[in-house]
Amino acid sequence: MSDATIPATESAGAEPGPPGTALPGTALPGAALADEAARLDAADPLRAKRDAFTLDDTIYLDGNSLGALPRAVPPRLADVVAREWGELRIRSWEESGWWTAPERIGDRVGWLVGAAPGQVVVGDSTSVNVFKAVVAAVRIAQERGAHRDQILVDEATFPTDGYIAESAARMTGCTVRPVAAGDVPTAVGARTAVALVNHVDYRTGRLHDLPGTTAAVHAAGALVVWDLCHSAGALPVGLDAHGVDLAVGCTYKYLNGGPGAPAYLYVARAHQPRFDSPLPGWNSHADPFGMASAYTPADGAVRGRVGTPDILSMLALEAALEVWDDVTIEDVRAKSLALTDLFLRCVETYVPAGRVRSITPAAHAERGSQVALRCAAAEEAGEAMAELVRRGVVGDFRRPDVLRFGFTPLYTGFAEVERAARVLADVLKED
Amino acid sequence: MSDATIPATESAGAEPGPPGTALPGTALPGAALADEAARLDAADPLRAKRDAFTLDDTIYLDGNSLGALPRAVPPRLADVVAREWGELRIRSWEESGWWTAPERIGDRVGWLVGAAPGQVVVGDSTSVNVFKAVVAAVRIAQERGAHRDQILVDEATFPTDGYIAESAARMTGCTVRPVAAGDVPTAVGARTAVALVNHVDYRTGRLHDLPGTTAAVHAAGALVVWDLCHSAGALPVGLDAHGVDLAVGCTYKYLNGGPGAPAYLYVARAHQPRFDSPLPGWNSHADPFGMASAYTPADGAVRGRVGTPDILSMLALEAALEVWDDVTIEDVRAKSLALTDLFLRCVETYVPAGRVRSITPAAHAERGSQVALRCAAAEEAGEAMAELVRRGVVGDFRRPDVLRFGFTPLYTGFAEVERAARVLADVLKED
Repeated sequence: MSDATIPATESAGAEPGPPGTALPGTALPGAALADEAARLDAADPLRAKRDAFTLDDTIYLDGNSLGALPRAVPPRLADVVAREWGELRIRSWEESGWWTAPERIGDRVGWLVGAAPGQVVVGDSTSVNVFKAVVAAVRIAQERGAHRDQILVDEATFPTDGYIAESAARMTGCTVRPVAAGDVPTAVGARTAVALVNHVDYRTGRLHDLPGTTAAVHAAGALVVWDLCHSAGALPVGLDAHGVDLAVGCTYKYLNGGPGAPAYLYVARAHQPRFDSPLPGWNSHADPFGMASAYTPADGAVRGRVGTPDILSMLALEAALEVWDDVTIEDVRAKSLALTDLFLRCVETYVPAGRVRSITPAAHAERGSQVALRCAAAEEAGEAMAELVRRGVVGDFRRPDVLRFGFTPLYTGFAEVERAARVLADVLKED
Repeated sequence: MSDATIPATESAGAEPGPPGTALPGTALPGAALADEAARLDAADPLRAKRDAFTLDDTIYLDGNSLGALPRAVPPRLADVVAREWGELRIRSWEESGWWTAPERIGDRVGWLVGAAPGQVVVGDSTSVNVFKAVVAAVRIAQERGAHRDQILVDEATFPTDGYIAESAARMTGCTVRPVAAGDVPTAVGARTAVALVNHVDYRTGRLHDLPGTTAAVHAAGALVVWDLCHSAGALPVGLDAHGVDLAVGCTYKYLNGGPGAPAYLYVARAHQPRFDSPLPGWNSHADPFGMASAYTPADGAVRGRVGTPDILSMLALEAALEVWDDVTIEDVRAKSLALTDLFLRCVETYVPAGRVRSITPAAHAERGSQVALRCAAAEEAGEAMAELVRRGVVGDFRRPDVLRFGFTPLYTGFAEVERAARVLADVLKED
């Protein structure tokens, strides 16, 4: 792993003053960075979006784990419960649009990841969708040649993808071959059925090359399944534009759908007629209320549905997605990079040299919307994050030594980022 | 199918008077049945439970499809959203008990189906749980003998169970053999790996013999998976007492968990060490936050978990289950049978002879908590149900000719049942 390391400069050990306390004629880096943060906030076209969320004085840099609560959710969910369930009851499956929610909300998610309507359904967990996607991809690949019996899996993947890929391999007569995500283009070959790759690494925040990897996999005659958990809502994905075959993702990170909100599955239109699900539930039947004993799959993305969708979680997600109505993902990406740039510079400036190093790539083209800092003294990392949380800066800790900070452009401000780095420096100095 | 038919008696065609209008000396059956309903309501030990639900003047006989809204749900869900998600955010996974919700709520469901703690987890849909259960059961059976390559499936099953069983068979090298649920004890044999049976038939309301069938399957060396969707919360199941291997069910019918509420999976303690899930997600890992690349399953029912649980739907279910705290399932069963008995008698008395016949067994030992009436004129059935709904009696229609009425003992009263039959008679007379 070629981590980007923050250079240990002399200035990195300087004591930053609180913002606004720089005396005339001095150039305390803290004051300069705080001023810069204030200027960036003033010029931020997404600044007003923060009001669409329920936030407090906490600096919440964990939206890459659980997004904050959009203000649209509580009243909408209250109405779903009291009126749609409580009063209309069973009639809501039709009258309140419950039955078609997975594909309706799927289209809304699809818009954010570059998928034209009719290719995304929302439902189940990411893990379950990985299973559907990998098995279906293997089946399509094996129609092209039965010798395609390998599943390449990003070796640094979020673990559940790997576990599920192993199960999919076992149940389809394949084997799993772990490969660094960056090496997929060279590792893919005639025996490859499918490659399962994370768009952004959950630990390091590294953004992988989706267009190039997809093209290389296709050139080898295989299919690719992208896990978008850490990219959807943070940066442009371009599923259709880059010819992605299948993709999955969760909706509780940058999409702010709520704890355990339903995941989604993208099946490119071209593959839909051959999408052969290992979980053919009645919700994906061509005539679900015909109650036929033989399974006949529906056309389109609906084929990715399984059982009855969890309506409360799903309609909370639908309300949460309203914040995107007047936002472009390009603006979000620009702000995301500016936020992580500023945080990296503040950490370099404030934190004593040698205490942490970034394992998040410095190059924009390789960076998602998080910064992961590895602590030089691994045993300090867990307690450092606990102390950060006590001081109102919420990131998370990933064993054994990583402090992870996520930046959600819709509600994270630049001044918060500068302050977070300052608190981090204080915590590490006092260790 | 040996349907129980309502005898077409002379009295069945008599015009029932409205309750209380019988003149002295006359014995209009309507008045007698209405009086009887009033007496039954007055003596009903569960009568006060109705106040725990949000109901109106509608006679809601579709709780076997979607249970009514328990009053405990809206305030609890509002708190989950505003405080646990909105204020505590990521901290709630630990501080609000989100992470352990699937097994905590699983124990609560388990109590209702006769499972001691530690054997039920809540999550995913029923369809997905059928897949886990059937595949895991096949794997256990094949440890006993590789020749066990048949899956017996209740031939009248709710379709999704059959579709998923076909997929499980395809992915484990088995074949599916459809068998009438009542014939499973004679059909099971040395090649049987697992039998998948519905405890109560979704269409007819027939209650199958769980103890006898389980014993017969075990005698043949196979395993049984019971689908409890239409029995949990309506009658005693006794999973532990009868030595059931695996079971699944939904929580949105008699358990009132809300639309698409998470389903559950029961894995008998004796099988847990060998429960080998086809969906080994990170939530069932022995050390989920260790983020190990190799899967090591957790001990216990947790092994049935997959991905991140949908917390909003799950905690709504938890609140919904509070209504059971001071209720015994035996009382519920007694009232359920009294409700369906009364409904069958009222239908026999009020509805013109020959217009409908019950396909729900007359014998208590064979009856769940619903009554299904087949219309003699099949083409009238859909419109008859639509008209019933317009007149405030909500059941549902199952193609081609079945009117289905579910009886939820916690909130359905006897007077409602009598009135529903009266309205049904009126609708059919006017057809």
